[in-house]
Amino acid sequence: MSGCKFCQIVAGELAADLVGETEAALVFLDYRPWRLGHCLVVPRFHWETIAEVPAEELGPLFTAVQLTARAIETGLAAEGTFVAINNRVSQSVPHLHVHVVPRRRGDGLKGFFWPREKYRDRQQQEDYRRALREAFLRLQERGSSGRAAPLSSPATQL
Amino acid sequence: MSGCKFCQIVAGELAADLVGETEAALVFLDYRPWRLGHCLVVPRFHWETIAEVPAEELGPLFTAVQLTARAIETGLAAEGTFVAINNRVSQSVPHLHVHVVPRRRGDGLKGFFWPREKYRDRQQQEDYRRALREAFLRLQERGSSGRAAPLSSPATQL
Repeated sequence: MSGCKFCQIVAGELAADLVGETEAALVFLDYRPWRLGHCLVVPRFHWETIAEVPAEELGPLFTAVQLTARAIETGLAAEGTFVAINNRVSQSVPHLHVHVVPRRRGDGLKGFFWPREKYRDRQQQEDYRRALREAFLRLQERGSSGRAAPLSSPATQL
Repeated sequence: MSGCKFCQIVAGELAADLVGETEAALVFLDYRPWRLGHCLVVPRFHWETIAEVPAEELGPLFTAVQLTARAIETGLAAEGTFVAINNRVSQSVPHLHVHVVPRRRGDGLKGFFWPREKYRDRQQQEDYRRALREAFLRLQERGSSGRAAPLSSPATQL
């Protein structure tokens, strides 16, 4: 997509610190790492978020993510990894990218980095569950093509 | 795996607020949500981290993640989602689980929740890149079976 920084990297028009490449994705260093060795896994095709990836492309994409996580563990002797995707909100570049960050015990990063919320009561929790379950079943019945399906009824914000 | 809370949920021995299920995974509410509607996608099989998932299972697992992200967007009218995996470090239950959290603009959650690190200089960045690239190529050449491959040489911590 013209004007997309990640498409330009995929096309070779913009330089990146390449870590690896597969048929599905490029892997390169994030230039502003959360921790040194922080990689981005970027699909070659311009999808904005995980929701738009066709079902048959999910396996190849997450194989590249898995390879990256394992390369971080073995290549940097990391004890673990953090894998994250910001879909739309907090997404700096509107081209799907998966962060894979080296972790070590005692590295000072918190797994739970946000104050948690609480359900007001059991009923509110059940309301959320039901709204999600209905949406999940609706999407599942239509077949998850990976493409956005129109809603039969407008979603309500709880 | 005996004693694993998520295996017990998969086996129906422990209750959960079920949102959906696929052949590959169960989806249920996190009982201590980062934000209300926070779901966990849990593979039926006991893999500890993403590194251990066989290649052919990655597609089905992330199809369930995609369905969940789309269900959160449509069912809760979320503007976006945050998808995250803690592999080993900060992982509360040692059974792979994918967090999928509703996001809205201005919800106060930060995409960049950790202070960033900086590469000391271009050389250090290149050292990281090279270590990762070598590990990536080594894993790729052996074929990413998803199972841990022994290292031919010990990893060095940069």
